[in-house]
Amino acid sequence: MTTLDDLPLRDDLRGKSAYGAPQLDVAVRLNTNENSYPVPDAVVDAIAKAVQAELRDLNRYPDRDAVALRTDLADYLGHGLTAAGVWAANGSNEVQQQLLQAFAGPGRTALGFGPSYSMHPLLAAGVGSRWIGALRGPDFGLTPAAAVAEIEEHRPDVVFLCSPNNPTGTALDPEVITAVLDTAPGMVIVDEAYAEFARPGTPTALALLPGHPRLVVTRTMSKAFGFAGGRLGYLAADPAVIEAVQLVRLPYHLSSLTQAAARAALAQRDALLATVDAIKEQRDRIVTTLRERGTAVADSDANFVLFATGPDQKAAWQAFLDRGVLIRDVGLPGWLRVTAGDPVETTAFLSAAASILAEEIQS
Amino acid sequence: MTTLDDLPLRDDLRGKSAYGAPQLDVAVRLNTNENSYPVPDAVVDAIAKAVQAELRDLNRYPDRDAVALRTDLADYLGHGLTAAGVWAANGSNEVQQQLLQAFAGPGRTALGFGPSYSMHPLLAAGVGSRWIGALRGPDFGLTPAAAVAEIEEHRPDVVFLCSPNNPTGTALDPEVITAVLDTAPGMVIVDEAYAEFARPGTPTALALLPGHPRLVVTRTMSKAFGFAGGRLGYLAADPAVIEAVQLVRLPYHLSSLTQAAARAALAQRDALLATVDAIKEQRDRIVTTLRERGTAVADSDANFVLFATGPDQKAAWQAFLDRGVLIRDVGLPGWLRVTAGDPVETTAFLSAAASILAEEIQS
Repeated sequence: MTTLDDLPLRDDLRGKSAYGAPQLDVAVRLNTNENSYPVPDAVVDAIAKAVQAELRDLNRYPDRDAVALRTDLADYLGHGLTAAGVWAANGSNEVQQQLLQAFAGPGRTALGFGPSYSMHPLLAAGVGSRWIGALRGPDFGLTPAAAVAEIEEHRPDVVFLCSPNNPTGTALDPEVITAVLDTAPGMVIVDEAYAEFARPGTPTALALLPGHPRLVVTRTMSKAFGFAGGRLGYLAADPAVIEAVQLVRLPYHLSSLTQAAARAALAQRDALLATVDAIKEQRDRIVTTLRERGTAVADSDANFVLFATGPDQKAAWQAFLDRGVLIRDVGLPGWLRVTAGDPVETTAFLSAAASILAEEIQS
Repeated sequence: MTTLDDLPLRDDLRGKSAYGAPQLDVAVRLNTNENSYPVPDAVVDAIAKAVQAELRDLNRYPDRDAVALRTDLADYLGHGLTAAGVWAANGSNEVQQQLLQAFAGPGRTALGFGPSYSMHPLLAAGVGSRWIGALRGPDFGLTPAAAVAEIEEHRPDVVFLCSPNNPTGTALDPEVITAVLDTAPGMVIVDEAYAEFARPGTPTALALLPGHPRLVVTRTMSKAFGFAGGRLGYLAADPAVIEAVQLVRLPYHLSSLTQAAARAALAQRDALLATVDAIKEQRDRIVTTLRERGTAVADSDANFVLFATGPDQKAAWQAFLDRGVLIRDVGLPGWLRVTAGDPVETTAFLSAAASILAEEIQS
């Protein structure tokens, strides 16, 4: 039998394993920051109708530039954006891969501040860029001075900022973003996948777009819109950035069905985004309850919470799984991440946590 | 206003323009080798039902490994294949990009025999590989000896063969493929996007998979299945190749809707593939008619025909457009490519050709 070792695989991929959380069939799945609320019936009907209208002409290629969808996304984002300043792809992973192909790639570098979204370094490796793993402070914080120092030292071609940051949950102080924009020699990507869950008063980097042509803000419909299965990521930036991305995107990358389904979901945004407040409530309940119990918890502007487990987070992860609660070991010693789901799921998590973390705190 | 020149774009992208045929609103569109037949009502209903069943759970990520879809694709392909030997992505472009990320990438090389599918060199450039543009013979043919000589000289990490070849239309002699497999030091990708349209007796490279773990056959549902808008490309290979591709694929790259729609289309394959014979009939009608008129035409195993225009193919392309017939200038001096559509479209093309090519032949 042929094995991977027998094939002329790239050397830098040897010994690697495929990215992805275990897809286990567990009652309470709080490991991938999905929105726990199913799509409401009225929205199902609207999307079904929009998709059905495309099916007869599926023999034709989709609109390569997805102009109608980009127009709708710009309308949703506001901030004076138009289709010319918005681009979409199959998930924000693909958006970020396209940005790296245009502005990084072989012989160039990308820098991020860990712990952060673990796909950023993998995307950089996938296009042949060298990854520079700068670090946040011991409290997972990032100050303007610390960010600027790393950028001045490494002069990266692309900087990733993640706000709210995954897996820690906390949004960046906008002064960090402006300091990075003032210093970075290349592109600055602010990954705002969780922006809709931010606590009141947390600004979006969209407000910084005017006058900053090297700033790109990426978003996704996977989380707040509950559209993870539909795969729709997007970006907002200066129109010249969209021209650049169009040089590297695969032609017809976004299917007619994806474009139609995403447009229908955007039109139903009031119904879909109604879940955001409910999720934030559970998120805050997790933060408050764990803190009341003496567990260290990072501030969260997202639909998930990072909490301390004691030294052996792997054993704690398994203990949660044994109790039917699947959460995420993000590889951060002493910490685990849980998605804020619906009230029943939150109760199941908090109930499991009561026994598991109590043991840890005592030990 | 910011322009592309103001951004820190990669040097190798400067001055380039985005890939893609003009998407013009013309009565007869025969430029992108789409299937001219709309999806039949019964198939529309089946796909709509399959998609609708996914919508409620769109808040959940799709099956990252698309196992059910890969099982159905293996069943369609036959040749003893199972899901372990099949992989799917958003169009065969993405499949081939993933293969290049795993087996080529920066510092490695990919080789193809032009004129061939113009995305192959662009995909290689997109992942930082050096492209080696070998050439077919003056009659667009490729012999085993000529192919072997190029491979022995360049020792490429990845070889692209295209059969039936786009834009010329002719399938490769299987002896070319086996000679390349015996010589190539790396992976050999046979792009069979148009396989279903091959003339009787033309073998597929799928038959060569046993015993050749470095062979990959790529296919698409865009052409024979009339599923261009659904974006579904796939590959068949040794299971170790699929393991390799899973190291570089973006997680959740294939939406729940795409997976469901493609599965429904595969289940309706009899209805969808019924168009193939009708298209082949028009393809043969174009070949025969043009040859009867004295026009040079390449043998076609595809749903398109490459024909000679006289020296100025750009003027001929415009002359067809002026008559409401959009065909493709593939950048091959003296030749144009036309998709075989339905009988009415074929008549429109042949009627336009009668006057345009007569002028050329006289001049």
